[in-house]
Amino acid sequence: MARDLASDADFEVTAVDVNPENLRKLESASDIRSTPADLGTPEKVKAAIEDFDIVVSGLPSFFGFQTLRAVIESGKPFCDISFMPEDAMELDSLAKQRGVTAVVDCGVAPGLSNMIVGHVVGQLDRTDRVAIYVGGLPKARRWPFDYKAPFAPHDVLEEYTRPARLVEHGQVVVKPALSEPELMDFARVGTLEAFNTDGLRSLLTTLDVPDMTEKTLRYPGHVELIRVFREAGFFDKEEIEVRGVKIRPLDVTSKLLFPKWRYEEGEEEFTVLRVIVEGVKNDQPLRHTYDLYDEYDSKTGTSSMARTTGFPSAIMARMIAKGRFDDFGVFPPELLVRREGLFDELIRELHTRGVVLTCSVTELE
Amino acid sequence: MARDLASDADFEVTAVDVNPENLRKLESASDIRSTPADLGTPEKVKAAIEDFDIVVSGLPSFFGFQTLRAVIESGKPFCDISFMPEDAMELDSLAKQRGVTAVVDCGVAPGLSNMIVGHVVGQLDRTDRVAIYVGGLPKARRWPFDYKAPFAPHDVLEEYTRPARLVEHGQVVVKPALSEPELMDFARVGTLEAFNTDGLRSLLTTLDVPDMTEKTLRYPGHVELIRVFREAGFFDKEEIEVRGVKIRPLDVTSKLLFPKWRYEEGEEEFTVLRVIVEGVKNDQPLRHTYDLYDEYDSKTGTSSMARTTGFPSAIMARMIAKGRFDDFGVFPPELLVRREGLFDELIRELHTRGVVLTCSVTELE
Repeated sequence: MARDLASDADFEVTAVDVNPENLRKLESASDIRSTPADLGTPEKVKAAIEDFDIVVSGLPSFFGFQTLRAVIESGKPFCDISFMPEDAMELDSLAKQRGVTAVVDCGVAPGLSNMIVGHVVGQLDRTDRVAIYVGGLPKARRWPFDYKAPFAPHDVLEEYTRPARLVEHGQVVVKPALSEPELMDFARVGTLEAFNTDGLRSLLTTLDVPDMTEKTLRYPGHVELIRVFREAGFFDKEEIEVRGVKIRPLDVTSKLLFPKWRYEEGEEEFTVLRVIVEGVKNDQPLRHTYDLYDEYDSKTGTSSMARTTGFPSAIMARMIAKGRFDDFGVFPPELLVRREGLFDELIRELHTRGVVLTCSVTELE
Repeated sequence: MARDLASDADFEVTAVDVNPENLRKLESASDIRSTPADLGTPEKVKAAIEDFDIVVSGLPSFFGFQTLRAVIESGKPFCDISFMPEDAMELDSLAKQRGVTAVVDCGVAPGLSNMIVGHVVGQLDRTDRVAIYVGGLPKARRWPFDYKAPFAPHDVLEEYTRPARLVEHGQVVVKPALSEPELMDFARVGTLEAFNTDGLRSLLTTLDVPDMTEKTLRYPGHVELIRVFREAGFFDKEEIEVRGVKIRPLDVTSKLLFPKWRYEEGEEEFTVLRVIVEGVKNDQPLRHTYDLYDEYDSKTGTSSMARTTGFPSAIMARMIAKGRFDDFGVFPPELLVRREGLFDELIRELHTRGVVLTCSVTELE
């Protein structure tokens, strides 16, 4: 996000991170100033953003909600890719009061997926089904997990444990995380395994579609291992006593697994996204299928996960800064694309950056 | 062992266990006296056995060697099914000095397996290969581990981590635990997976056979899971720091897994043992194959693991008590069966108790 915005003569970008090492990498490559700072409290966030016109953020989930509130209270426009377990819409009226436009969940999925769904739903007369599949994976599969975490591993385990909300027959239903695994084929990648995760989020309330699922993609076998660890209690958050000391099994598991799930410098990875939207237009049942495949950019050393989550957000931040929005409030991405031409502009901008969405429409029945 | 010996008018049996609950179960069913006592130190062992003529033992592995020494120092004949990581033969000269006959490793495997091997090797002119396969498993396979531990689970994890010593081309070689998995079929059970464990023990030195392996049997898939846990560091014995407390991953893993690996009261299980001995007799290459399948005895509530490990030891203890041995020292079972008629007597006695060995001899080439 920082590099993308810094490449634009209209922006002066300052990056803030608690780890100076991360900032050095950014500075060396681009025209970005940086400030090492802890953003762990609302006060520190407010101090860090005081001198700036617009804020773009990608923090670990436990800081997501408090940071959103701090930015809104500071009266700054905001574009965010952070995941947060809380409901960002709780801060909608505060944002309206403060005259703030805050776009949340603006990564790849949630994010680009929401924009695709919002766009297609807007074109159909009636939408019957939405299915979103997303995953970020290493190109080289290594036993036993066949996995590396492209963002905070803690948030990966969150995905593996938080019950998944989806919509069946018009009702929100809750299913266990990792449930209903299914095998699916993807061009250039082969067969992946999809399982329920809690990724519909704002779509649960902004859309009135009777059948909606969101699933995460992994190499086949990974989810079975994770289910074994969960079943055997290694993700438990309740303290247990082991030889006189109290400990949460999840903390031990994190300590052991996370170093093994870290990408090496320059390790090749890719991101896949498939969004299926079914409905009716002029009495014709249709299926819209969007597919995205993006991979590590070795020229710039940018991961596909950084590209696919960062570009939508940087593009959207640019639109906000250029005054494309006159509404205040907290906006999930599916609501933004109701603006004429915005979706096409976003897709064009992504294409310029090498992130290519393919789309096919099939007539059903 | 206690029940088997108590059923014999020639014996008065007293059972000693640290857990009074275990003793109550024994007392209620048979003519056995009992003494709750901690056997965790040599002094306590010596005090507990002071008034008795012969000692039979089945303790967790960390007490095995010190208990053997304590019994020898007390001058009592001994028959033991305890596993011990140490080499029992180190106490051979002490046993000779004290005039003690101590039979060690006298369970099912090591134990019965050693007797079979010793017996067949004694019949052949030349032995080329010994392969031992053994496992104790629940009849009902339950996801994810398809396993329950028929003895101290700590000793099961020992089997899964201790490097396996085997013999190839006349040389002792060391391979990782869980290595070289292979699928094998067993009557009444179906396909099981065999993998290297460190079970040859005394056979490594008492026999001169150029090719010897010992493998443990599990339902297919179990060993892969265990390898994942090992690879991911969950069996590590080095302390790690987790949120300010130091802990050994193995201790956390044990705490979580062991309750799940405990047999329910009355849960059906079985024990399988296959021993293959190949060699030459009168210029004819032969393969001797012994198979044992034994299952939970619902009439007496005795597990097959208790039957197949306890009976060989109880039978042998009876022979020692009745003066069948005039040798002093520490004896692994393969050396005992060199006595004329002893192997046939053992097999007959096991048969009386419903533990049935089948044997087939195939001519090779």
